Amino acid sequence: MKIKIYYHHTDCGGVVYYANYLNFLEEARTEFLAAKGVSIKDQAVDGTMFVVARQEIDYKYPAVYGDILEVATLISGTSGVRVNFEHEIKNQEGRLIVKAKTVLVCVGKDFKPKSIPEQVLQMMTR
Amino acid sequence: MKIKIYYHHTDCGGVVYYANYLNFLEEARTEFLAAKGVSIKDQAVDGTMFVVARQEIDYKYPAVYGDILEVATLISGTSGVRVNFEHEIKNQEGRLIVKAKTVLVCVGKDFKPKSIPEQVLQMMTR
Amino acid sequence: MKIKIYYHHTDCGGVVYYANYLNFLEEARTEFLAAKGVSIKDQAVDGTMFVVARQEIDYKYPAVYGDILEVATLISGTSGVRVNFEHEIKNQEGRLIVKAKTVLVCVGKDFKPKSIPEQVLQMMTR
Amino acid sequence: MKIKIYYHHTDCGGVVYYANYLNFLEEARTEFLAAKGVSIKDQAVDGTMFVVARQEIDYKYPAVYGDILEVATLISGTSGVRVNFEHEIKNQEGRLIVKAKTVLVCVGKDFKPKSIPEQVLQMMTR
Repeated sequence: MKIKIYYHHTDCGGVVYYANYLNFLEEARTEFLAAKGVSIKDQAVDGTMFVVARQEIDYKYPAVYGDILEVATLISGTSGVRVNFEHEIKNQEGRLIVKAKTVLVCVGKDFKPKSIPEQVLQMMTR
Repeated sequence: MKIKIYYHHTDCGGVVYYANYLNFLEEARTEFLAAKGVSIKDQAVDGTMFVVARQEIDYKYPAVYGDILEVATLISGTSGVRVNFEHEIKNQEGRLIVKAKTVLVCVGKDFKPKSIPEQVLQMMTR
Repeated sequence: MKIKIYYHHTDCGGVVYYANYLNFLEEARTEFLAAKGVSIKDQAVDGTMFVVARQEIDYKYPAVYGDILEVATLISGTSGVRVNFEHEIKNQEGRLIVKAKTVLVCVGKDFKPKSIPEQVLQMMTR
Repeated sequence: MKIKIYYHHTDCGGVVYYANYLNFLEEARTEFLAAKGVSIKDQAVDGTMFVVARQEIDYKYPAVYGDILEVATLISGTSGVRVNFEHEIKNQEGRLIVKAKTVLVCVGKDFKPKSIPEQVLQMMTR
């Protein structure tokens, strides 16, 4: 997934603000799952939500205004209630900007963990 | 209400990003109403929400990292479903940064306009 | 320009947060100008920046998670230092979400107004 | 440091959006250092910047609109170019919301790592 950097992504240090990469990761996960047929929106309507339980992120090189970033996403593993994502973000010159690991947990409307529905799990991991 | 400027408020032009002032205005309206005894949270629970229908904002002078802004807020008028707010934001030297007018509309859970509850209106405007 | 709505654009009222539309407008202006050959980035490097001096925005209908918005942009007029933009944002059903007017002012590195360079003005308005 | 939760911090899942906690952590680090006499602003003017090299964050319990969060901050260690921060965020009932570790790296204006100035290091860790 490509992300173009605008003013609103940057800070007065002249680079992309560190929190904004988490927005990019959300977008990338959503599109990654959509490509596998899993709609986060439809799941939420059915009472199955995926919330971020843990984020690790290493900032390797700054991105700047006008950059076009490529966010690569994969699922590195799942358990009953968890899905582990790994991300790499590179800039238009192929330079590594960010490496990240995200743990999602499947929860119900009460925000309590519940097993990932079997069909969703199969779609995610195929 | 005072707002201190951190990196996350700024952009690579070196100043506060123009959209972020609308966050400050939300905070200022909320505290202005709270001081009059009107809790936006409690109203929302009761099915009365106030949504922004119109925003006018003039950017007079840039705010920068480390500034401490003062947001002044008043209600300039109300109608059956509307509340008109006026704001001025000044920096720590008293310099005018932003002037703004915000129109809130009272809506129900269906996002359709409804009259401001009489008691709320009285509290807002006393 | 198309904008897809993700969680990070929304608030707990269930709709897109009002300030976030200003991010969309920035993106749309940038791409509108780029299509005319004007690079905001290159201009900034040359010491010509365009800052927002005034924003008017009417919120007509809420956008929600998963919507795909179309931002239409045009220049309605220019003066020596000013460029007036008009925007309409519609959702995937063609419903009007937002109408907005933005006044940009051309400034130098000292943030003081200066005439828009003649060549830039011609490119913008052709 | 206290942070009050407004609409702009939340998302349509009804809770604080996961990236926004990184904004809170920035604010808390800044105030933590300021209390020790280290001004991030003055350091930046002198060509010493602290950039985030790594962030780990565990989301334990959701924060919601109206919550008043307390962000606790400490420095758990330093090396020549690095400062390690640990954070805990609790809500007004003392419930743990977030645990986080942040690694800052000292860089010059070229964004290359450099040793933390001795005086700054002493102030940070006293």
